[in-house]
Amino acid sequence: MGTSRRKLHLNAFLMATGHHEAAWRLPESDPNANLDIDHYISLAQTAERGKFDSVFLADSPVLFTHTERRPSGKLEPTIILTAIAAATKKIGLIATASTSYNEPFNLARRFASLDFVSGGRAGWNIVTTAGAEAAQNFGLDDTPAHRTRYERAAEFVEVSTKLWDSWEDDAIVADKDAAIHGDSSKVHVIGHEGEFFKVRGPLNVPRSPQGYPLLVQAGSSEDGKEFAARYSEAIFTAQPTLEEGKAFYADVKDRVSRVGRDPEQVLILPGIVPVIGDTEEEARELEAELERLISPEYARAQLASRFGVEPHELALDEELPEDLPSEDEIEGAKSRYTLIVELARREKLTVRQLIGRLGGGRGHRTFAGTAQQVADTIEHWFTNDAADGFNIMPAVLPSGLEKFVDQVVPILQERGLLRTEYTESTLRGHYGLARPENQFTEESALVSAR
Amino acid sequence: MGTSRRKLHLNAFLMATGHHEAAWRLPESDPNANLDIDHYISLAQTAERGKFDSVFLADSPVLFTHTERRPSGKLEPTIILTAIAAATKKIGLIATASTSYNEPFNLARRFASLDFVSGGRAGWNIVTTAGAEAAQNFGLDDTPAHRTRYERAAEFVEVSTKLWDSWEDDAIVADKDAAIHGDSSKVHVIGHEGEFFKVRGPLNVPRSPQGYPLLVQAGSSEDGKEFAARYSEAIFTAQPTLEEGKAFYADVKDRVSRVGRDPEQVLILPGIVPVIGDTEEEARELEAELERLISPEYARAQLASRFGVEPHELALDEELPEDLPSEDEIEGAKSRYTLIVELARREKLTVRQLIGRLGGGRGHRTFAGTAQQVADTIEHWFTNDAADGFNIMPAVLPSGLEKFVDQVVPILQERGLLRTEYTESTLRGHYGLARPENQFTEESALVSAR
Repeated sequence: MGTSRRKLHLNAFLMATGHHEAAWRLPESDPNANLDIDHYISLAQTAERGKFDSVFLADSPVLFTHTERRPSGKLEPTIILTAIAAATKKIGLIATASTSYNEPFNLARRFASLDFVSGGRAGWNIVTTAGAEAAQNFGLDDTPAHRTRYERAAEFVEVSTKLWDSWEDDAIVADKDAAIHGDSSKVHVIGHEGEFFKVRGPLNVPRSPQGYPLLVQAGSSEDGKEFAARYSEAIFTAQPTLEEGKAFYADVKDRVSRVGRDPEQVLILPGIVPVIGDTEEEARELEAELERLISPEYARAQLASRFGVEPHELALDEELPEDLPSEDEIEGAKSRYTLIVELARREKLTVRQLIGRLGGGRGHRTFAGTAQQVADTIEHWFTNDAADGFNIMPAVLPSGLEKFVDQVVPILQERGLLRTEYTESTLRGHYGLARPENQFTEESALVSAR
Repeated sequence: MGTSRRKLHLNAFLMATGHHEAAWRLPESDPNANLDIDHYISLAQTAERGKFDSVFLADSPVLFTHTERRPSGKLEPTIILTAIAAATKKIGLIATASTSYNEPFNLARRFASLDFVSGGRAGWNIVTTAGAEAAQNFGLDDTPAHRTRYERAAEFVEVSTKLWDSWEDDAIVADKDAAIHGDSSKVHVIGHEGEFFKVRGPLNVPRSPQGYPLLVQAGSSEDGKEFAARYSEAIFTAQPTLEEGKAFYADVKDRVSRVGRDPEQVLILPGIVPVIGDTEEEARELEAELERLISPEYARAQLASRFGVEPHELALDEELPEDLPSEDEIEGAKSRYTLIVELARREKLTVRQLIGRLGGGRGHRTFAGTAQQVADTIEHWFTNDAADGFNIMPAVLPSGLEKFVDQVVPILQERGLLRTEYTESTLRGHYGLARPENQFTEESALVSAR
């Protein structure tokens, strides 16, 4: 195969000791890796060695439950990614940040700053935050409704792009002799007044190398897919089977077309949890070892909380009860909820079996096998209209990422699916996405800032 | 002189091309240094070579006026300092952040994250934000009143320390065999309910290396001094004469004692703008060159805005008008306002002369002279109860900081006033300040988190 064909995109989803909830208990794991910046830097350097497009950090502004059962403290993602920026050269840096509990001015500025510091490598995974406990960290009694959260998210993104565009690209003159630094006719008050936000602007940071950060999104509910079609440039998603993956891919690309955007400028990256062994047996042994390390009582409590039921209602050795709530009654992570219930019903799993299946990927596709088998499944999805690339979620870190980079990446490169060297220097460049036009450049209706 | 005597503390106040507003126009200056992370990293490395205690960044969540006249874009300080943390080993990192337009949960987490990433080198310069334009970036029509802003700031700090203390220092067990990561009885819901904030907690980051960041403050109004006495561990201040410096020093140390704190655990660091030459004449020449580069029209507009009058009311070649507003009528930077008016009246300066005096230090003490003279004045203040150290604000960067480190620092070290090597690894360590006790460690009235 040639090297000029369509290229696969890879994102490394970094998570302390790995995506398997029990990975911290393995002998190789540092249980305090979640607080160790050198651990994150080293992971990103490994991903960069493997020519990944980007690394990614999840986030939520609340202490996750079950402090007892696994590492629960998390450093703030833009801080981690800034430290990574200083220790890497090319790889993109995607941080999750909540539209529910931030101010657009502050967040837009932080991402613009990360984009400058990294030389154009910043991405923002746009999320809404569900859950009463998070709400209670920000003065509310309970979480706003799902629809309201998405409406706020949409307005948040609109305000942010206005702020990022508030300086035109050629606003800085820097003429020492004339004593003129900025051309104030090219720095705009945005004067945004909406349902959720009233923001004057301009931003106090000029337009950043990428124009603005790559916009990423991961919700797969109806609201989530509509939001993604309108705003996202890359989409992370959990798709357990090829058929579901193809259906999601077609659905989202279609929605993108319908809002008048180019479907090729919106990349879809399903998650995969690869558990790699030198033989298939070795991979399955590691998977089994991880399952044994799960505490079933803790996992059951977690599942019950997701389902909105009491733990005792889920008998470990029976199938899920018939009378679970519908997706409409679930406040957060709606599509993930349905995906898990359907998986359990389809395969007639007991609660204990379901826990085993979820332990690694929380609903993402776990794949235990050899490097060759992992490469095959990636190629299969990629060439069958189910993926533009993958969100790689190693069960165990750092070893799972190292194995992927040392064993799977060379196969993908040999097949001409993955770059062998970086050809671009920005995150948008890696993903083949255009630098956005500045919405204010050709119009003058706005009041000049000063 | 011996080396065991009381040591001087030095902070480097970093600001793009320097503290003189016209410094960007010098041939040596990069007019886009404000957006260049390598510039900031290099400045911090220079300060670390000079064994400074810390570097510091000012901030405000609004685009400063006069984009035309000088570099006005500013990267977010915790982002800059994280990049600096990755490229330095010992020097402390102090970021300004507003209590008026942040959420305590988000900000406390960001500083805790910076403290982890830097290995215990984070400091927070606590400010309130004045000005209608800043307010309008956050949904308000106008700035809250001075007193209200300080009340919110006090509650903000109270909430933040509760969040930073919400994990006891020994809350992480990390027992792989027992499958117990955190001791949930040592992770506390804070349940804060106050006038401005309602925050559940716990924070989603464990207690950081320093316990919490060094708390710094720079307001010198009545409200500001009371706030500083209650909460600050280091105070930046503008004091134009030794007499005023001594009076401020005595006043604040007295206020600290009166609220029951140890005055030695609160350091006072006046600002100084050194303009260093090989001869006094050379220093004065550089100072004169900088004054010539100031645009008087721009500077007059800036002064008028500070005074709450129209520019034409300030005749360039006359003294200030008699009927300026009183400090009570000024909304922001009250004490700086009074300081400037008193300076002009005392020395009978014309507006043009006043502009020249302010151009370098905005009211801070500008000192043009040889390295020896700068060292003498620093020692004089330090040994006469006017300072525990200095906030060094070079008129031109990087050259002003390099001259200070290469020429003034060795003199201070020879005199036994300044460390010759770092003996500590945290910012609190450098400043000789204790790691704070955890307010929750010995009580159990709080509800255990989970």
